[in-house]
Amino acid sequence: MLPKLIKYILTETPQSQEIEIYGWVRTKRDMKNLVFVEVNDGSCFSNIQCTFDRGAGLNAQTEETLVSLTTGASVKINGKLIPSPASGQAVEVAAFALLVLGQAPAETTDDIQGYPLQKKRHSLEFLREIAHLRPRTNTFGAVARLRSHMSYAVHRYFKERDFQYLHTPIITAGDCEGAGAMFQVTTMEPQTIAKQFKAGALDGGIDWTKDFFGKKTFLTVSGQLEAETYAMALSRVYTFGPTFRAENSNTARHLAEFWMIEPEVAFAQLEDNMALAEDFLKNIINSVLEECAGDLAFFDAHVEKGLIDNLKQVANAKFLHITYTDAIKELEKAASANKGLFEFEPRWGCDLQSEHEKFLTEKMAGGPVIVTDYPKEIKAFYMKMNDDDKTVRAMDVLVPRLGEIIGGSQREDNLEKLCSRLTGMGMKPEDYWWYLDLRRYGTAPHAGFGLGFERLIQYVCGMQNIRDVIPFPRAVGHAEF
Amino acid sequence: MLPKLIKYILTETPQSQEIEIYGWVRTKRDMKNLVFVEVNDGSCFSNIQCTFDRGAGLNAQTEETLVSLTTGASVKINGKLIPSPASGQAVEVAAFALLVLGQAPAETTDDIQGYPLQKKRHSLEFLREIAHLRPRTNTFGAVARLRSHMSYAVHRYFKERDFQYLHTPIITAGDCEGAGAMFQVTTMEPQTIAKQFKAGALDGGIDWTKDFFGKKTFLTVSGQLEAETYAMALSRVYTFGPTFRAENSNTARHLAEFWMIEPEVAFAQLEDNMALAEDFLKNIINSVLEECAGDLAFFDAHVEKGLIDNLKQVANAKFLHITYTDAIKELEKAASANKGLFEFEPRWGCDLQSEHEKFLTEKMAGGPVIVTDYPKEIKAFYMKMNDDDKTVRAMDVLVPRLGEIIGGSQREDNLEKLCSRLTGMGMKPEDYWWYLDLRRYGTAPHAGFGLGFERLIQYVCGMQNIRDVIPFPRAVGHAEF
Repeated sequence: MLPKLIKYILTETPQSQEIEIYGWVRTKRDMKNLVFVEVNDGSCFSNIQCTFDRGAGLNAQTEETLVSLTTGASVKINGKLIPSPASGQAVEVAAFALLVLGQAPAETTDDIQGYPLQKKRHSLEFLREIAHLRPRTNTFGAVARLRSHMSYAVHRYFKERDFQYLHTPIITAGDCEGAGAMFQVTTMEPQTIAKQFKAGALDGGIDWTKDFFGKKTFLTVSGQLEAETYAMALSRVYTFGPTFRAENSNTARHLAEFWMIEPEVAFAQLEDNMALAEDFLKNIINSVLEECAGDLAFFDAHVEKGLIDNLKQVANAKFLHITYTDAIKELEKAASANKGLFEFEPRWGCDLQSEHEKFLTEKMAGGPVIVTDYPKEIKAFYMKMNDDDKTVRAMDVLVPRLGEIIGGSQREDNLEKLCSRLTGMGMKPEDYWWYLDLRRYGTAPHAGFGLGFERLIQYVCGMQNIRDVIPFPRAVGHAEF
Repeated sequence: MLPKLIKYILTETPQSQEIEIYGWVRTKRDMKNLVFVEVNDGSCFSNIQCTFDRGAGLNAQTEETLVSLTTGASVKINGKLIPSPASGQAVEVAAFALLVLGQAPAETTDDIQGYPLQKKRHSLEFLREIAHLRPRTNTFGAVARLRSHMSYAVHRYFKERDFQYLHTPIITAGDCEGAGAMFQVTTMEPQTIAKQFKAGALDGGIDWTKDFFGKKTFLTVSGQLEAETYAMALSRVYTFGPTFRAENSNTARHLAEFWMIEPEVAFAQLEDNMALAEDFLKNIINSVLEECAGDLAFFDAHVEKGLIDNLKQVANAKFLHITYTDAIKELEKAASANKGLFEFEPRWGCDLQSEHEKFLTEKMAGGPVIVTDYPKEIKAFYMKMNDDDKTVRAMDVLVPRLGEIIGGSQREDNLEKLCSRLTGMGMKPEDYWWYLDLRRYGTAPHAGFGLGFERLIQYVCGMQNIRDVIPFPRAVGHAEF
């Protein structure tokens, strides 16, 4: 039998029943006759307070153990659940027996370094170096529970709407989208590569037909193209899996490995896609507001003030729709009324800068904005061309504080137009034979979007560095654990 | 507005309301005045039959479109939902308008190859070559929905039991477990490798500190060790993500990329782990029996006869527990009573062969069996040593038809024992510093198991080749799409 989780014990009605607590010691306060031990098992943000009363006659072993008890030790505590006289907690444990399952020595000795998570504030940088222990802190325990809950909320959202979950491949032969630098996957030995290179084999010196997959392979940058194949069979699908970028960016905004959510819907147009994105975002935010209150209160109090109000605003907002062309007009108007408002001049044909996104959401709309119909030159080949032959049926969802959180489009479902776009961008249609097959056989309007899961978590909890919302971050120079 | 899915239309009460159907044509039968068109949108196994009555006065465009309508075309059909006179369907559509959204030419011309999925049986081998179209078949549509549902059932199971879902890293620096051959992940150019190799740099010629992560990196073979770090903070966690093996096995049982489920529980012993594994398996099977009846009926009828009864048996069975040592005794007894029963002689210290597993489940127990306490020599370093110093607290769950479906153990939580086991196996404790930290700071009994998701799907649907239960299979020589 697994122990009852503290999450549930804390909400029980105390009727003096005997209970057993398993968890890790967060703090101990020794006050002469009374010893207060706060225990956490990670099932919720709150600790449970276990109060040992030396005056009430503890057994010798418990007395002794209490003296040497340190932060971080794992314990089993027996006691009675009683109403708590202390503020901020309804119940506590009148404890009578204590067993240490695993010590966590406070002091560094010859044998062992002292437990690094002593009761004091640690910098996020320091905690990143001990990513295997940081979930034991308030902050990272809360991030972990939030991430887990949000994952579930994503699956539940799509399940309830009959989207089939699809595992698209991680290893891929296609350098398809040109979405960014890719990692190569190989089992070729360096000596083989060196030998072949010297002998002057194919493709930059190497005969990749000798590699594991018989060709050069990479880590995927997106599951979209594969998701489209399933959408054209099952109507509504989504992916939720790891994707990769080999970009040499050592910043607080970039990860080499991150999780992406990509729904794809047949018989859907851009307007359906916009409605789906808005509904999805609101649903996830509402589920966090309703089901992660304890952790969210912590983020609101200690990580980003006003977070909860801000999330509620977004959840209740009507997302404003504006075309890229109109958005540029608004930005130009603002820029000419106020010289020096923007560092980068807004100009039709260029991507929106962060400062432009900020203006659109925070000043113009006072809430989330969906910008549509971007110039084809700054968007991917698979987006559906508008009749003007200049813009494509793209959409970016922008939110206050963060900027772009979702990018999507209606897809080009016309074979000739897609081929000519591919050719126009210098790509070879034959490399996309299977993707083009979707337009050869039973093509239909379809649309979808992509959403970086870590950015969504950051938005919901306010953590500033993306490396702090994924358990073991991968970035240039960082692959510990 | 997204169209209403056929899944829901089929269960509606026909009250002659007008409806609109979106989907792909599965078959067309033209019988003089009546044309029967079966349409599928992938939302469920069943098609909806749309009946066009030429006698009832169709418009000219619909008349014309009907003639050239082919299998695989995407269509929009308008009509009225009526009770169906045909057997096997409660409702059908009395259709009056037909629009083809995308053709699927039946005949190969100079411009385009004919749609490959004509109405006839296709071999699974052939369908593997068109993995981008195969979800449009009965079989692979059913597999896709089953896989999606089972993924959700896994998440729901753990969510309801307060397990936190954890995304463990895909790219890893550790060759930790020795669980099998690994894929290397790199951004090093062949010429760099060749140049360095020639210059005689480190590690087989290459200075991996120059690579993206500053060290040699691989695709993960398991998230277990990282999951343990979170279990020792959050009590109950699980992973569900892609894992990789670079094994050169071109068989129906091996994939280079597959999805694994790995729960890990603090304050749990082997017995808790066994109970969890049994309960988990039954829960998933029951959820499929209850929620995937349509697809399961197809598998039972066309893929593996008796499948549903077999699944029900497992869901209702009490899993038999037996130690490895006792299992060997049973096998030896059977072998000596019946010479030639086994190809491989059962012998203490050797792994169980498939034929042994088959005997234990199908003959000895007549149902699932959990074998525990294996010789340490044939199990991984992290499994908890028994007092006999010969066996470890391992468990394998064996099921009829398949054999091993789950492997797990209680973990060694004692620092000294774990270190001595590592050293004894020729591994370096310092390479596992963070894993050992879990035993240095607040160690606690914990246990977990691993389950290959594709094998579970195979077990539930009876598909014989593992490449047919993952959308885009990766195996030696295969990385298409």
